[in-house]
Amino acid sequence: MTETTLNIAADDPVLGTDFAIEMVRQMRAVDAYGTYDTWSTNKILDPFVLTKPQKREIPVVGDPDEIVMSRVKAFYNAIAALIEKECGLMAVPTINLTHEGFGRALITVGKLVVMDKTLRDVHRFGFPTLSKMKDEADKILSVALEIVGEYPKVAGL
Amino acid sequence: MTETTLNIAADDPVLGTDFAIEMVRQMRAVDAYGTYDTWSTNKILDPFVLTKPQKREIPVVGDPDEIVMSRVKAFYNAIAALIEKECGLMAVPTINLTHEGFGRALITVGKLVVMDKTLRDVHRFGFPTLSKMKDEADKILSVALEIVGEYPKVAGL
Repeated sequence: MTETTLNIAADDPVLGTDFAIEMVRQMRAVDAYGTYDTWSTNKILDPFVLTKPQKREIPVVGDPDEIVMSRVKAFYNAIAALIEKECGLMAVPTINLTHEGFGRALITVGKLVVMDKTLRDVHRFGFPTLSKMKDEADKILSVALEIVGEYPKVAGL
Repeated sequence: MTETTLNIAADDPVLGTDFAIEMVRQMRAVDAYGTYDTWSTNKILDPFVLTKPQKREIPVVGDPDEIVMSRVKAFYNAIAALIEKECGLMAVPTINLTHEGFGRALITVGKLVVMDKTLRDVHRFGFPTLSKMKDEADKILSVALEIVGEYPKVAGL
């Protein structure tokens, strides 16, 4: 893949945010063969961005493969890491897939569920732009921190 | 399999408890071909009981198959159903397996985690007796209800 076909520009300002840095860290963590060692960060995060035509090419019904699953995990792991960084308490992500890419993603802090999302069409996991991906993560993060702030005792259990 | 080789006696008093009745209900729910229709309840629950020699026959390391997984799910589904019955709030079980039968089982009520268990050796899932299985379920149930009682507001979210 040449640089010109990437969906994320090398100078995209979002790449400098805590979220993107954590996403790259998560992707590198599961990169057992060091494939990403020489890759730029926009290339590493590129599979998370699916343009409309790219999404249209993926069948509506399908089973998610290992690669897509590792991306879904990286996304929620990154959010859990940011929650942990902000509130100082351990945040644990759990992803439970059933059939055909349906499932549930949870993040818990102590005995508190700070995120509970139904997953659908996991085989087509992706965001229109990197910025939209960060918006989604920010939204989850701020709701999670609000819940922790409201029930600090349960989060500390 | 003849009746004499079963680990659970047909007149085991535990079979009459709410827990065993719920377990049978859960097993019948996933019995797509009606295999259990003519089975006695002790025969349906028999695979949950593993005697020491039976456990010894199963390799220490192994991947859990679909059948074992359906038993693990039935067990936590039954507990979730009993929690729900007792506290009147929806209890949702989530099971997340990683490799070689390691994983995590969660039950949430609202935004409250009422059970959080690390799973190990899932391929050897089983209890020494039906009574010990019920004890384990009772323990989880009473802890869960205690947590709900302590944080009813979080459980009601």
